[in-house]
Amino acid sequence: MSTSDFATPDDAEAAFYAALARADVGGVMAIWSEEEEVVCVHPASIRLVGLYAIRESWRQVFASGARITVSTTHPVRWVSATTAVHSVHQHVHVEGDDRLHPLIIATNVFSRGARGWRLVMHHAAPAPDTDNLHYHDTPHIVH
Amino acid sequence: MSTSDFATPDDAEAAFYAALARADVGGVMAIWSEEEEVVCVHPASIRLVGLYAIRESWRQVFASGARITVSTTHPVRWVSATTAVHSVHQHVHVEGDDRLHPLIIATNVFSRGARGWRLVMHHAAPAPDTDNLHYHDTPHIVH
Repeated sequence: MSTSDFATPDDAEAAFYAALARADVGGVMAIWSEEEEVVCVHPASIRLVGLYAIRESWRQVFASGARITVSTTHPVRWVSATTAVHSVHQHVHVEGDDRLHPLIIATNVFSRGARGWRLVMHHAAPAPDTDNLHYHDTPHIVH
Repeated sequence: MSTSDFATPDDAEAAFYAALARADVGGVMAIWSEEEEVVCVHPASIRLVGLYAIRESWRQVFASGARITVSTTHPVRWVSATTAVHSVHQHVHVEGDDRLHPLIIATNVFSRGARGWRLVMHHAAPAPDTDNLHYHDTPHIVH
């Protein structure tokens, strides 16, 4: 389990996706802030609040034994002295699974504290492969 | 169209949902920053970047004539001098439509500029009514 202090939001974000690719619960949890409220929304899932619930969710994600690699593209970033927000496209690859996984749109929020930059929120949601907008219709995922 | 300068992120957020309830494209757009990159993700939709695309999307949302009211609960907030992030549960009601609409999990990001606090990102995604996690499975919405 890393105890690194991250000098930049990008460092923390890279460490997050690297730990995810290692299916490393301790590594993933080492990215999160221990000073502030933390929130995690997995794709098409409920909102989890607090380190305990978030740790348990990653344990479940990794319990299947699947090795998940996530690459990110198209970053849009807003950075201030103590808060950084990154909007990214996540591309998911599951080892041994050739299905095309839907694009995931993610928002990552980082806060700078005594231990450097840490993740305080990860909000991931699947994107459809259509650009039709149905704000108030029953949501559906086309893939 | 409002040209108010919002003194707090809460003021900007309240004005956003009020304009949405009025189906007021100009009012919704008056909340967004004109100084920074802006991003909007409607529920189960693609990511839109830039004021033009975002304005067009709200025009489409309102074009049906449906009056949509969104109330928010369970806020988790991270606020610094110039950036604020709100994670909220959105409850959607469509006038004349008694169907129960899925809970929407939304992240709203505000930036403080010359014109006060403005919205720079709205990321909304439907939540399932189950707490099962399927990070790498085909996303599905249960409602």
